[in-house]
Amino acid sequence: MKANEYKVGRIFLGRLPNGGDFLAAVQEFCENQEITLGVFYCIGAVKRANLSFYDQKNRKYMSFEIDQELEISSCSGNVSLKDGKPMVHAHAVLANDAGKTYSGHLMAGTIIFAGEIYLQELVGEQLVRGYDETTGLPLWEMREP
Amino acid sequence: MKANEYKVGRIFLGRLPNGGDFLAAVQEFCENQEITLGVFYCIGAVKRANLSFYDQKNRKYMSFEIDQELEISSCSGNVSLKDGKPMVHAHAVLANDAGKTYSGHLMAGTIIFAGEIYLQELVGEQLVRGYDETTGLPLWEMREP
Amino acid sequence: MKANEYKVGRIFLGRLPNGGDFLAAVQEFCENQEITLGVFYCIGAVKRANLSFYDQKNRKYMSFEIDQELEISSCSGNVSLKDGKPMVHAHAVLANDAGKTYSGHLMAGTIIFAGEIYLQELVGEQLVRGYDETTGLPLWEMREP
Repeated sequence: MKANEYKVGRIFLGRLPNGGDFLAAVQEFCENQEITLGVFYCIGAVKRANLSFYDQKNRKYMSFEIDQELEISSCSGNVSLKDGKPMVHAHAVLANDAGKTYSGHLMAGTIIFAGEIYLQELVGEQLVRGYDETTGLPLWEMREP
Repeated sequence: MKANEYKVGRIFLGRLPNGGDFLAAVQEFCENQEITLGVFYCIGAVKRANLSFYDQKNRKYMSFEIDQELEISSCSGNVSLKDGKPMVHAHAVLANDAGKTYSGHLMAGTIIFAGEIYLQELVGEQLVRGYDETTGLPLWEMREP
Repeated sequence: MKANEYKVGRIFLGRLPNGGDFLAAVQEFCENQEITLGVFYCIGAVKRANLSFYDQKNRKYMSFEIDQELEISSCSGNVSLKDGKPMVHAHAVLANDAGKTYSGHLMAGTIIFAGEIYLQELVGEQLVRGYDETTGLPLWEMREP
């Protein structure tokens, strides 16, 4: 496991905007606050969701939509730089009215009903996403420990 | 997205009491320690659970019980003030013996078997829950950024 | 609820190794860095998974394998000492290509495809796992508050 050491930067507690796109809302906040590295988690509810699954053999995301109201039972992720801009990477666990649970990689088009987010900025060596040959994913470029 | 900036306050690692009510145990701890704002997450198991789903159109929580032993696969939430007292808001992801997963808004009546909790107090402007007209929920009253 | 107070120690953001065993990778990192207490969370994907459910009445873990590619929709846990060595305790929420979700206690044999982990060391009174008569589990030995 490769890892860098960081210090806690700014910490935010916030409300996600009703009707806003989850990823866009978090990304815009990071851009406005000049947050280039951090982690977050969130609970709340969405009006609808787009999730995806990464097909490891064919190296592409398979997305699917869930066009109904859902609880955000868990949502965690991070912010780092890709192509010079803050990129939000989030995975979400969502539930319908019977508690039936869908989860995966959160995509654009997931529309917030309400959300309470904790975001912790990290201060130290910047992490930048670049193409990883082993997985086909945009992973953090890290030196060997 | 509206957000306030906070500093890390006290941090606790704790054990939830076997046979106790999840929400009541966390709330009692916060009252005893005078924690009025913070975030937490927890893993463990419950003897039974009450979850709910917020019906966004009819603006009411629809609760359902799961009367069996379940793993707490994820539980995250926050503590803030409502009506002058610390209120615990938690969402949980629970699993049965086949890994089948139920999730949603955690309610009173969820009884702990075992639980390991990380709780981080936050220091800064107090967040208070008040009625939000857009959603019908008791959300944090926050100024525009 | 019994709890101890801690200070934030070192914080790491890291990449889990493709093809590595999840628990072994985190444990080896903790051993190398001499981390004996902390919490973490992670998102990513696995090539296959072993999960388990604790049968509260018969006091044994019932494990099951999921021999397919899965997203790590949530994974949270902690590190503390058991038998003098760092022990990683993790619960995971995993999803297949349709978002169908399996979750539970993460076991050895869960093989990483990619993973982004946040690990926060905690500094204070060491927590040590010992046999708990009430549950049959190796829980933290904590004094009454």
